[in-house]
Amino acid sequence: MRILLCLFLSLFVFLNDILSQDGDVFMIKKIHDEALQNGHVYPWLTDLCVKHGGRIAGSDAYMGAAIFTKDILASLNGVKSSFQDCEANYWNRGDKNEVYMTDESGKLLPLNALSLGNSVGTSNEGIMAEVIEVKGLDDIEALGHNRVSGKIIFYNRPMDATSIRTFSAYGGAVDQRTYGPSKAGEYGAAAALVRSMTTNQDDFPHTGLTIYKDSVSKIPGLALSTNDANKLSKALKAGPVSVYINTNCKVEGLRSAPNVIGEIKGSEFPDEIILIGGHLDSWDVGQGAHDDGSGCVQAMEVLRIFTSLGYHPKRTIRVVLFSNEENGLAGGKTYAQFSNSNKEFHLAALESDSGGFSPKGFSFDADTSVFKTCYRHVSKWLPMLESYGLHFEKGGTGSDIGPLKSQKGLLIGLRTDSQRYFDFHHTANDSIEAVNRRELELGAAAMTSMIFLIDKYGIK
Amino acid sequence: MRILLCLFLSLFVFLNDILSQDGDVFMIKKIHDEALQNGHVYPWLTDLCVKHGGRIAGSDAYMGAAIFTKDILASLNGVKSSFQDCEANYWNRGDKNEVYMTDESGKLLPLNALSLGNSVGTSNEGIMAEVIEVKGLDDIEALGHNRVSGKIIFYNRPMDATSIRTFSAYGGAVDQRTYGPSKAGEYGAAAALVRSMTTNQDDFPHTGLTIYKDSVSKIPGLALSTNDANKLSKALKAGPVSVYINTNCKVEGLRSAPNVIGEIKGSEFPDEIILIGGHLDSWDVGQGAHDDGSGCVQAMEVLRIFTSLGYHPKRTIRVVLFSNEENGLAGGKTYAQFSNSNKEFHLAALESDSGGFSPKGFSFDADTSVFKTCYRHVSKWLPMLESYGLHFEKGGTGSDIGPLKSQKGLLIGLRTDSQRYFDFHHTANDSIEAVNRRELELGAAAMTSMIFLIDKYGIK
Repeated sequence: MRILLCLFLSLFVFLNDILSQDGDVFMIKKIHDEALQNGHVYPWLTDLCVKHGGRIAGSDAYMGAAIFTKDILASLNGVKSSFQDCEANYWNRGDKNEVYMTDESGKLLPLNALSLGNSVGTSNEGIMAEVIEVKGLDDIEALGHNRVSGKIIFYNRPMDATSIRTFSAYGGAVDQRTYGPSKAGEYGAAAALVRSMTTNQDDFPHTGLTIYKDSVSKIPGLALSTNDANKLSKALKAGPVSVYINTNCKVEGLRSAPNVIGEIKGSEFPDEIILIGGHLDSWDVGQGAHDDGSGCVQAMEVLRIFTSLGYHPKRTIRVVLFSNEENGLAGGKTYAQFSNSNKEFHLAALESDSGGFSPKGFSFDADTSVFKTCYRHVSKWLPMLESYGLHFEKGGTGSDIGPLKSQKGLLIGLRTDSQRYFDFHHTANDSIEAVNRRELELGAAAMTSMIFLIDKYGIK
Repeated sequence: MRILLCLFLSLFVFLNDILSQDGDVFMIKKIHDEALQNGHVYPWLTDLCVKHGGRIAGSDAYMGAAIFTKDILASLNGVKSSFQDCEANYWNRGDKNEVYMTDESGKLLPLNALSLGNSVGTSNEGIMAEVIEVKGLDDIEALGHNRVSGKIIFYNRPMDATSIRTFSAYGGAVDQRTYGPSKAGEYGAAAALVRSMTTNQDDFPHTGLTIYKDSVSKIPGLALSTNDANKLSKALKAGPVSVYINTNCKVEGLRSAPNVIGEIKGSEFPDEIILIGGHLDSWDVGQGAHDDGSGCVQAMEVLRIFTSLGYHPKRTIRVVLFSNEENGLAGGKTYAQFSNSNKEFHLAALESDSGGFSPKGFSFDADTSVFKTCYRHVSKWLPMLESYGLHFEKGGTGSDIGPLKSQKGLLIGLRTDSQRYFDFHHTANDSIEAVNRRELELGAAAMTSMIFLIDKYGIK
């Protein structure tokens, strides 16, 4: 009798699993249909880019984007939207961007260059100095103070084109941009030029954050297009070259740059928060379409799809559009501080910040004390997502949600097909034209599917 | 003693497998490095598109492209290149493309339309007739001769935007374009308009092949942009609408349009041919960048990478750039006829005709008598390719290589991330600007890796 009961129960659990999974498969299909047939991401992103492009935190464009997205969130059925106070160090590119190299006859040739974010400008009359090419930060130490002092250091180690993972290639070269100017300044250099972070050969300089050590005197840092980096390097092989730089960028100090929040309260477990986010700020050049307008509208779309399908989450689903990811991470840090001081618990946080390209899956991270259990748990869902071309892996997730790791929930990053990403990243051509509607919509559908499963089943 | 010997042999085989696979992994990495660092696909495709765009089989542009690609193949070390005679029915779009609809006041509004490939034109004074909207070919039978006769039939069933597989969505709608005009003609219609094959809402009409039944009188068939299809459909809901069409396209008869061949003879098994191909012809509008200049330069790149890495194939590797895939398949049919009459054996044939997008893997097909064994055999290689984001599946491969199936080798199609494909397919904007260098290069690297493994290990 007991055996029979056991068998019956096993059969019941088995059938229940099957039926439940069938229901989930159906729901995931409905989510994709809604995203692809009635998707709002592309028109939202178009408006965000065209009306509120170049949204550096603290700028008027940022505030415009914050109001625009908050209003959309407020318009969704059952969603409460708000600003979260946040202050960011506002950096202003200024209106001078003169960069020239000397040719063999001493004539000045213009270079396609852009000040790096948070960089200081030059003096009013500019800087003219001889250029020394290096391949990385270690070279500065090897050269020593005497040879670096007074020179313009030119970091010219390319991103590794052979790396299939473009973000790894970026990670392998970006120390030159992030720490190169400070390091060169430490050894007395007058300025630093950095080869743009792309494997493309073109005329677009790629800006991005540079960070100065507190103790070091700050020197101007600029990105050079890859074509011009090649030109400068070639000229240097033939003989000494000087470069003239005149810029007036500067950090202007703290300004309001709120995070934008939209939330649906959970019906059963309102204290278990599932966060979906992107960062609303972008660099001032370009429209911030892939980086990271895409992630913002995709996160908003998750809520829209839920409300449109009449899905009422058990847990609290919160969209957070973070401020100041690009040059300080004030948004992510502020959010985590508020959250911790309010003793909140983020069951999961999913960030989309790899561009609005075809989704390839998700990467997962968590505190080591919970990671294994969570990853085993979510891996059960993979068969339902594989037919959408989605795969799972362990790895990095998103800068803005990183500070939430201590809450011991699951951190998730949307992975995309990023082969085109560094054509646009931090350049003037990161614009709506570079985004494909279906690819953007599929990313939103993938995120919604994942959030649906977490809401329904938890993470362990 | 015998047991010891068995153990020793097993260990030897095991170690040999491991070492061999290590060598293969290394070779596949070298192939990818070469494709990404020294790739020729993008500059080749640029020239092919810019200098020899709109390569409809039988046109001067096609002959220019044939000479251009044959010369490149001939310049590769150890490659013998040639033309293979082929004749294709040359279709000429003509110089008249006037399409207007009447508005409620009877005024004529221009429509974005393009004659379908192989379509007949109108009489010199054009056609003006009332429009009847239908969702598919069955509707024509339901309407019957009396209601269809003298009308312009407007096929307006959209491609299914919810299908993740865009080629399936295309397959689900394209019967309207391929057989719609003939079917309407059978019932006495004056002309047929077909909603463009795309899930995009835009102003680009997508041309493409239409086929007439021999017994039926031919009527003009045209593609309408999706925006204008929506406009026409909306107007029809309000009342009767007439459309005016005046075109002078026509089939002009047989012309020379050779297949282009480049070959490296195999050192051990020269009679086992491994074919790699794409189709060199394209529609006359646009540059034929994704369809299928990409596949052609990728096939050529396989040979270039082999010669560049000093790899000497055991089997004969043959690039074939097929003629007339778009409007008759004369290239594929002619090639198979020559091959069969020369008693050749194609061990494998790989076609790339899904656009120059990020590769997602390969689909495999073969005669049922050999498929299972082959698929089991090649599946062993999957672990070496998965880290490049490549996956295997059973399914369709390529139109041009289809006629080779009877030789009982393995047919293979390169699968790509095709979400953007039907933005460009058969339109004026299928141009080099729509192709990303890295994505194109990765496709060539994937193909070269697959051909390397087949050459080294065979297919069973």
